[in-house]
Amino acid sequence: MLKGFHYPLTPKGKSTLNPTPPWHYSSDFLNIEFWSDPAAVAAVLPPGLDPDPKAEGHGNALFYDWQFTGANDEYLDPARYQYREFFLLVDAFFEGRPVSYCPYIFVDNDAAIARGWTQGYPKRLGQVFQTRYYAATGKAGPALAPGSKFAGSITASGRRLAEALLTLKEPVTDLSILKQRPIVNLLHTPRLAADRQDKPAVHEFVENIPHDVKIEQAWIGEGLLTLPVVAGEEISDLAPIRCGKGIRASMAYIVDDLKTLRDLTK
Amino acid sequence: MLKGFHYPLTPKGKSTLNPTPPWHYSSDFLNIEFWSDPAAVAAVLPPGLDPDPKAEGHGNALFYDWQFTGANDEYLDPARYQYREFFLLVDAFFEGRPVSYCPYIFVDNDAAIARGWTQGYPKRLGQVFQTRYYAATGKAGPALAPGSKFAGSITASGRRLAEALLTLKEPVTDLSILKQRPIVNLLHTPRLAADRQDKPAVHEFVENIPHDVKIEQAWIGEGLLTLPVVAGEEISDLAPIRCGKGIRASMAYIVDDLKTLRDLTK
Amino acid sequence: MLKGFHYPLTPKGKSTLNPTPPWHYSSDFLNIEFWSDPAAVAAVLPPGLDPDPKAEGHGNALFYDWQFTGANDEYLDPARYQYREFFLLVDAFFEGRPVSYCPYIFVDNDAAIARGWTQGYPKRLGQVFQTRYYAATGKAGPALAPGSKFAGSITASGRRLAEALLTLKEPVTDLSILKQRPIVNLLHTPRLAADRQDKPAVHEFVENIPHDVKIEQAWIGEGLLTLPVVAGEEISDLAPIRCGKGIRASMAYIVDDLKTLRDLTK
Amino acid sequence: MLKGFHYPLTPKGKSTLNPTPPWHYSSDFLNIEFWSDPAAVAAVLPPGLDPDPKAEGHGNALFYDWQFTGANDEYLDPARYQYREFFLLVDAFFEGRPVSYCPYIFVDNDAAIARGWTQGYPKRLGQVFQTRYYAATGKAGPALAPGSKFAGSITASGRRLAEALLTLKEPVTDLSILKQRPIVNLLHTPRLAADRQDKPAVHEFVENIPHDVKIEQAWIGEGLLTLPVVAGEEISDLAPIRCGKGIRASMAYIVDDLKTLRDLTK
Repeated sequence: MLKGFHYPLTPKGKSTLNPTPPWHYSSDFLNIEFWSDPAAVAAVLPPGLDPDPKAEGHGNALFYDWQFTGANDEYLDPARYQYREFFLLVDAFFEGRPVSYCPYIFVDNDAAIARGWTQGYPKRLGQVFQTRYYAATGKAGPALAPGSKFAGSITASGRRLAEALLTLKEPVTDLSILKQRPIVNLLHTPRLAADRQDKPAVHEFVENIPHDVKIEQAWIGEGLLTLPVVAGEEISDLAPIRCGKGIRASMAYIVDDLKTLRDLTK
Repeated sequence: MLKGFHYPLTPKGKSTLNPTPPWHYSSDFLNIEFWSDPAAVAAVLPPGLDPDPKAEGHGNALFYDWQFTGANDEYLDPARYQYREFFLLVDAFFEGRPVSYCPYIFVDNDAAIARGWTQGYPKRLGQVFQTRYYAATGKAGPALAPGSKFAGSITASGRRLAEALLTLKEPVTDLSILKQRPIVNLLHTPRLAADRQDKPAVHEFVENIPHDVKIEQAWIGEGLLTLPVVAGEEISDLAPIRCGKGIRASMAYIVDDLKTLRDLTK
Repeated sequence: MLKGFHYPLTPKGKSTLNPTPPWHYSSDFLNIEFWSDPAAVAAVLPPGLDPDPKAEGHGNALFYDWQFTGANDEYLDPARYQYREFFLLVDAFFEGRPVSYCPYIFVDNDAAIARGWTQGYPKRLGQVFQTRYYAATGKAGPALAPGSKFAGSITASGRRLAEALLTLKEPVTDLSILKQRPIVNLLHTPRLAADRQDKPAVHEFVENIPHDVKIEQAWIGEGLLTLPVVAGEEISDLAPIRCGKGIRASMAYIVDDLKTLRDLTK
Repeated sequence: MLKGFHYPLTPKGKSTLNPTPPWHYSSDFLNIEFWSDPAAVAAVLPPGLDPDPKAEGHGNALFYDWQFTGANDEYLDPARYQYREFFLLVDAFFEGRPVSYCPYIFVDNDAAIARGWTQGYPKRLGQVFQTRYYAATGKAGPALAPGSKFAGSITASGRRLAEALLTLKEPVTDLSILKQRPIVNLLHTPRLAADRQDKPAVHEFVENIPHDVKIEQAWIGEGLLTLPVVAGEEISDLAPIRCGKGIRASMAYIVDDLKTLRDLTK
């Protein structure tokens, strides 16, 4: 039997893009709160997800510097598994329940693309960067201190799609502020067969259920996000009307399951 | 309704990784014939594909410099759609019929990964290069002439996985030599749900049925392929015992369909 | 003795960025003619180069898909030596003589950066793409024919700096149209020593004197260039007021010498 | 007057690869001690640097995850200025004084190449990775604790040149263990002019004199380095005969000066 979770499936299972779950993650991240035109948010929601009537176009932009591992010390092969990520989450309702939906997401690693597509994250490749924090601070390495600035950017297909800036104010003392809505994605695998190109093999609402979430070194401050207009892309339809708070923190969690909420192919 | 063929599905369908088929391709390519240990070839075949009893481990290594377009002039956005590809094909039998199977394939573009996974090509990201031919020849640009040399290489996750060298001998006059077996792949979409990680959403044998194949400027010569042993990979299990002829040519074709041969989930 | 032309210098000279000249090149290229605000062109010229009084801001934007070799078959290691390039040339006068000056240039390869800096080309890294021509034409591969379109783009530091489009009209029959002015660059090597940071080690006008120039498959048509405004860059100060003809062709040449016109450190 | 420290020199000085010093740096790093064949170390030293008679081939391999800034908040444009670095240092004597010499160094950023060449570091492009430490630890993010493992790797021109592994033992309490020898490099700018290709424009021994060095979170442990044999490279001539201790820490410093020890062109 061939082995592997994602492509390729091979005799020993060493070449596969990803080992079988559980998948472990650690990261530093920036999280910028923003409000788009509520009509633009409504437009990116797939049928079956409803606008959150009180959200007024609320969303979050996130930049992650991830490290990944499975059971085989993948974190010791950072050239293959370390990656960076940018994504947007917008507030929505699923069957009357507040959730987040991810319309756009970019990573710089193929194993991360494969894991994302398996979770309903519509990942494309991009070059993602965020200002880093180092224990040895200085003019090049901002301290975790009031007034320190951290920036993020994402470029895909040669075009800058988003830029963010966070100015720290204070450590987060009320950890409830870091709580996120559950993320509900559209899991989608299209069919190439000529008579089934409008009948995807997989098309369902899924809920991500990560666990063992840890957050450390969380600071809150003022966030700024821009989503410039570029040819061939439509992410700028969600360009912020105003921005809100920003968070910078480290986090870790485990992914080993996914919950199907509704199969849309039936 | 959201639009797009692959992720992401968006209001206008501009952000999708790929437009709806038909998909058009043009390329220059190198094709190196080789023979591996037949047991190694047998080991990479999924159950349901059989070794070709007369093949003696025969396969082909291919390097492509692709240009892609759909209906929206994607070839005029080469930063997003132009790409390079390396793959192996090994001879096999499907229900007694001679076919080729692709155990390993690498590209340097996310749209190409998405199209590949939809066709059963187990693509990973890699850095693929081949020596180019230019109308203005010289010491840096080999002519299409006897003795000219063209090289190819592929690196993935920071490790060199294959190198090839082709020495031209003569133009191809008998075009039947360029005919390939049909390619039968394993179309595979795994499930992350904890109770279904061994029950893929899609798991079937598919046959690629490209059409309007054009080949130009075909030259034949002597091929050489090496598949070095590297940590974390097993492609070198197919390391050539001997190599055969090589081809350098330009080609074009159209992909707009896929034929399911057998659904393995049932 | 250590060996090598550029860094690093090593016992065997194999690790050097570049072998000793002669350096051989072959390429396909796009060349788009444009006119900027003459004051913007005057502003990018170093003291000692004068605006061409009749040029009215005339310049050229060039996209190259290069292959390079020295004496050691470097063209057979395309992962190390093949590269893509974008640059601008603006018309100028040096001591009353019509020349071109290169204010901005980007490549995707370190060996090309090193060779460029040795010739006075102010290279930075960038991701450069151009639509390719293949002998096997089709919807994805434009023919060399009236109305065919070829595009180019350059992104550096994650920001799109230029885009070009060329629509072919006819083959070039009068080869004199392809003749370029001599290129005069500012060769510049700064000093880090605290008391010499304003006294560069090398600061001189140099003239590039390539030879054995070959041009093949030249087509002429209508060109279009855009240089969008982006943060942290000033290339857009040369944004075209109007564009002119465009050329698509293959070329080859040899570089093995450089002529110092004036040493500015004395 | 044109502005900028490195290429390109432009009217506003925004496009330059680097601002005028001072240059500020923060980083996390791995430092692996090793011993090569002393004859191999002697062979990489330029004439004028002598083997350290007691070193027995001693050197250090270093992996850095750098953030850089000048006076213009460059650390807030990480896509342009953040970078990763790998280099070797070998023990040597300069005029009877113990120093380190850098024979090989790789970075993934052009601004870092330019700064390096100005300091005598013989930089090439490479893809450098190291396992990261996060405040939110877990299976994917090793803690700063005994037994934790951190890995590093470097690939250049598609070939894996070095791999390292560090197993932490304990925090560094005696900070003197972190003290490095002064680094003496060969500053080298070649000439392309046909009659001066063996007469470099700049060829001198220089000493790096960084200051305000800060080190934090230093842990010591057991190091392992491999330098595999690869085609077209000779770094493996320094392949370790044995390895010693390893350090993982954060550091910061400032570079704004360089000391010429001896001009070799005279």
